[in-house]
Amino acid sequence: MEHTVTFTHDDKQVAVTVPTNTLLADAAQVAGIELSQPCGGQGRCGRCAVQVTTGQVRRRSTLRLSDADIADGYALACQTVVEGDVSVFVPPQEKIERRLTTDRVVGEVTVPADYDYQTAQTVRRVHLTLTPPSMDDQTDDWSRLQIALRLQRRYEKVDISLPLLQRIGNILREGNWEVTAVLQTVAWEDGQSARLIDLRPKHEDEYAPLWGIAVDIGTTTVSLWLVDLISGKVHAQVAEYNGQIARGEDVISRIMYASKTAAGGQEMRQRVLDSINSLLETACKRVKLEGGKVTPDQVVKVTIAGNSTMMHLLLGIPANSIRLSPFVTAVNHVPLLTGREMGLKVNPEAVVDCLPGVASYVGADITAGVLSSGLDTMDNVTLFLDVGTNGETVLGNQDWLVTCACSAGPAFEGAGVVNGMRATTGAIEEVWINSDTLEPTCRVIGGGKPKGICGSGLISLLSEAFITGIIDKGGNVNLDAPSPRVREGAHGGEYVVAWGKETESGEDIVITRVDIDNLLRAKAAIYAGFTVLADTVGIPLETVDKVLVGGSFGKYINVEKAVQIGLLPDMDWSRFEFLGNTSVKGAYFALLDRHKRERITEIAKRMTYIELSADNSFYEAFTSALFLPHTDLQKFPSVQAALEKK
Amino acid sequence: MEHTVTFTHDDKQVAVTVPTNTLLADAAQVAGIELSQPCGGQGRCGRCAVQVTTGQVRRRSTLRLSDADIADGYALACQTVVEGDVSVFVPPQEKIERRLTTDRVVGEVTVPADYDYQTAQTVRRVHLTLTPPSMDDQTDDWSRLQIALRLQRRYEKVDISLPLLQRIGNILREGNWEVTAVLQTVAWEDGQSARLIDLRPKHEDEYAPLWGIAVDIGTTTVSLWLVDLISGKVHAQVAEYNGQIARGEDVISRIMYASKTAAGGQEMRQRVLDSINSLLETACKRVKLEGGKVTPDQVVKVTIAGNSTMMHLLLGIPANSIRLSPFVTAVNHVPLLTGREMGLKVNPEAVVDCLPGVASYVGADITAGVLSSGLDTMDNVTLFLDVGTNGETVLGNQDWLVTCACSAGPAFEGAGVVNGMRATTGAIEEVWINSDTLEPTCRVIGGGKPKGICGSGLISLLSEAFITGIIDKGGNVNLDAPSPRVREGAHGGEYVVAWGKETESGEDIVITRVDIDNLLRAKAAIYAGFTVLADTVGIPLETVDKVLVGGSFGKYINVEKAVQIGLLPDMDWSRFEFLGNTSVKGAYFALLDRHKRERITEIAKRMTYIELSADNSFYEAFTSALFLPHTDLQKFPSVQAALEKK
Repeated sequence: MEHTVTFTHDDKQVAVTVPTNTLLADAAQVAGIELSQPCGGQGRCGRCAVQVTTGQVRRRSTLRLSDADIADGYALACQTVVEGDVSVFVPPQEKIERRLTTDRVVGEVTVPADYDYQTAQTVRRVHLTLTPPSMDDQTDDWSRLQIALRLQRRYEKVDISLPLLQRIGNILREGNWEVTAVLQTVAWEDGQSARLIDLRPKHEDEYAPLWGIAVDIGTTTVSLWLVDLISGKVHAQVAEYNGQIARGEDVISRIMYASKTAAGGQEMRQRVLDSINSLLETACKRVKLEGGKVTPDQVVKVTIAGNSTMMHLLLGIPANSIRLSPFVTAVNHVPLLTGREMGLKVNPEAVVDCLPGVASYVGADITAGVLSSGLDTMDNVTLFLDVGTNGETVLGNQDWLVTCACSAGPAFEGAGVVNGMRATTGAIEEVWINSDTLEPTCRVIGGGKPKGICGSGLISLLSEAFITGIIDKGGNVNLDAPSPRVREGAHGGEYVVAWGKETESGEDIVITRVDIDNLLRAKAAIYAGFTVLADTVGIPLETVDKVLVGGSFGKYINVEKAVQIGLLPDMDWSRFEFLGNTSVKGAYFALLDRHKRERITEIAKRMTYIELSADNSFYEAFTSALFLPHTDLQKFPSVQAALEKK
Repeated sequence: MEHTVTFTHDDKQVAVTVPTNTLLADAAQVAGIELSQPCGGQGRCGRCAVQVTTGQVRRRSTLRLSDADIADGYALACQTVVEGDVSVFVPPQEKIERRLTTDRVVGEVTVPADYDYQTAQTVRRVHLTLTPPSMDDQTDDWSRLQIALRLQRRYEKVDISLPLLQRIGNILREGNWEVTAVLQTVAWEDGQSARLIDLRPKHEDEYAPLWGIAVDIGTTTVSLWLVDLISGKVHAQVAEYNGQIARGEDVISRIMYASKTAAGGQEMRQRVLDSINSLLETACKRVKLEGGKVTPDQVVKVTIAGNSTMMHLLLGIPANSIRLSPFVTAVNHVPLLTGREMGLKVNPEAVVDCLPGVASYVGADITAGVLSSGLDTMDNVTLFLDVGTNGETVLGNQDWLVTCACSAGPAFEGAGVVNGMRATTGAIEEVWINSDTLEPTCRVIGGGKPKGICGSGLISLLSEAFITGIIDKGGNVNLDAPSPRVREGAHGGEYVVAWGKETESGEDIVITRVDIDNLLRAKAAIYAGFTVLADTVGIPLETVDKVLVGGSFGKYINVEKAVQIGLLPDMDWSRFEFLGNTSVKGAYFALLDRHKRERITEIAKRMTYIELSADNSFYEAFTSALFLPHTDLQKFPSVQAALEKK
């Protein structure tokens, strides 16, 4: 029996006639439509999903499709056969990919809907018109300015630094006694004390931006958002490797380097300052404004998140006590500083607010992450994972919060991996391997020639290599695999993801046995962290309502792949939410809103830190997790099913 | 008729027989006793005063002797004749000199009797014993320290700078968790906020000194007192020329130099900082302590007085507006700073308190001077003169204070005068000229060879030269005077005070026509200042209860001489009080006592500034006073009498 299959694709219609039980994928091929099938038609990748609008089909597998998808007529072309005349809509590939993966668009950040500069911001702009001095009124400049501020805003006390005091006389005269003051206030309310950050010799446009930056200092990656404090809008988002990486990949080696000599500590401080200052330059250049350019010295407020070691090294504070028992920090709640004190190329008087941490291994990146994830307001028990060089876990809800940390290493940020890189243009962010040919299909950020592999690409690659048998559950490369891409390299077996002729550098892009070991240790540490934490507080993982995942991966995270390698627990995908860099986002919230800033302090106070290093069960959980996906496959039924299917 | 005169001198008795009406001076010569007669036996210098204990004498003149002196039997040997047998006590010359001049001993300062470190001082020392961290208590170092301070003193909030935060971890461990905190407090009371100045890795002796300095920055001279804040004791007093003097002698030329370029302002700032830092080094070296040495970085509190221009230049604040109409300062009330911000070589966290000024030409030196003179607590109307490079006058009592200023120039501080110098070892501090021979007698500080002439020496010299006719009332040197010491020099007529063979350098020490002009302008400005001020507020000078005179002259001020040159008004000498450097003394009081510090702020607020530059009468008064002692000799009856006598 034959049926007519009518494809709608690129606004065109093509009809073909095929026998009953023909795969939609084959029908499409007859119709001259090339569907994406990176997994080789095994029903694993979901990339060949099409929408059956009319007619009868039979789905052999619905892997990667939700009930809602199926109700909407979605079917995997490689797993679905025709049983009557059908109309099939072939969606743009882009749409498929977005639907199938967690969308982590970093380009656009939505300003919190409730953001009101007037009530939330601690930095404010005040226009002043002063009476010029005369022989009848010889009041000094600084008193004159204070009186004007008192009259207009009832500030009882206004602080000023010496360098600014040195400048006010000239600014007042340059502005002909019409000036704009930028102030740091304790609260927006009038009658409070304030600190003068800047004095500008004209009345500025009321809605012209006041610039601030939110910064996350990761062990591996530093992220910076350039923000207009008036509108709350994020004008630029930039990230780069932490310059300290040249002196060690994890916090322990950084501390040891910084502790060796006084110069070492100074060097570490300068390296991360250079990273931030350089990111700030880049961010400023990216902003297109009608009124002119943004320069770093216009930044009047800085909010910084980062783990405790990063915060200590940034501040030039000895971090050795973090490394040594009993593992205490020198400071968790850093006083407010200025741009000058911090050594940043922002306005020297800028407010610099280092967010508070909880313990040596649970820093401000986690308190900020909890804020931006909303964990501290959840009704139900929720798990928050921050996947970075350190893997931190927070479990809790609006009533309680417990936390622990483990050292994962920088592999998921593309560091410590031979062809690893950050999730920027040229990074392979997703890989599919054809299970017959073992040939990979890669998606590259920006679409050009690949330069390396970023975190999400590594997760994807590790999972595919495992599912297709290129590597075994121990991470060993199967050198007998029938592909020229599998070979013996300098450091054991390796798999060629892209041949030199296809790459930006002309060199092969590979994943090696050593890379795989680093990735296994990273995922095992994170998995062990949250499972031991859940055990410790007696909350079975399956009762957790949601799993919120933060981290600087690529643009997309493929949940299935993260489960297949055993990084995430095997549970219904709808319970996962991928939040991107929760730390910089929390810093952004705190930058804008003093109430959210106060909430971070509350979060830091509320969190109970559980020290895993004192716990044997962590080490056991870690070693058990050093396999793909885990020693105990029963913990990963969906992976077991996928393997059996193969 | 003959009489026996029995002299008691140096514990010996000598009796001589002389005819009636023999001068005691002549009788002494017969007895082989050499009385000091620097004025040549004219009854002007009072140096030959002796005490007639029994017998009848007749005093031809009692100049320089008070009624009490006469009641005690004092008589001038050169003006007193014997009329019977008499016994005469010849006091040591030192005693005579002290009695005749205002004693300005700067060596010993008395700690205010009511000084109580516990209630008055804003800097305090707290001993802390902390519980060391453990796996059960991973509180961070800074929180641990804050908690200990809160437990012991209930400080609600303790501030700390980043550089100190960088050090506390090591200090706590070095001290094995027993430390001494030095804190700046708003008030002594518990429960206040505080700022950590220093943390020391041991429990210090409770009575060991805590070091502070009081500084007066004069246009010409910088003075510094090194003080123990616990006992209040002044351990060293040092002074030196202001290093800015190389760039101009008065405030106007300094401002112009500083305003020309940014580098000029920076240079002026550095010059005075260098002066202070160098004085501090010297002061530290002078202190002898049982427990060891004092070093500049142990200084934890600094209080600074100085005129408004000096304060602006010290702070690197453009001072141009001080010079230009409408003559306003950039700042009168400087915020509290730290040693680091100020650029002083004290503890970088030291409190640096610049005292408040009133106006462009009435600065913190005057508010501090009013405090230390007690003018603001007087029942009766009192005149306060600060004789320095600027001549400032304050008139008032506990109910009101008016003030004005004029530019006197640095002559009374020994600058701008060819052989001028500060009142230190080698300075001629008093001069007497024999009216017959025109030969001078000099007293030199320290007693060795003279190096130059200090302020009090110049006043004395000017007066003597005038009274003996070496110069006329216009200040012209009388080249016909019968003395080889009077001669034509490079800049007109001059008088040789000391021949090269007698001096330290081997060069003649002279006073020239140019020097005399500088001195005349200086005294005329000061005299015009207080007379016009008194006129302006309608207080006749003669109704003024007391005249308090501050200034960095020599060790002694000779009231008679100061009146003879027309620097001070001609009134009963008992109404004058010479207070020395009232500015540094006020800074010292403010350094010790927060109540006195608050009083200075009150004084600054209470003072009404009268701008003399807007006043023609000042110019008239000034030109009238450019003579010795004044155009109108009737204003100086005692001088008129002395001249007539001659």
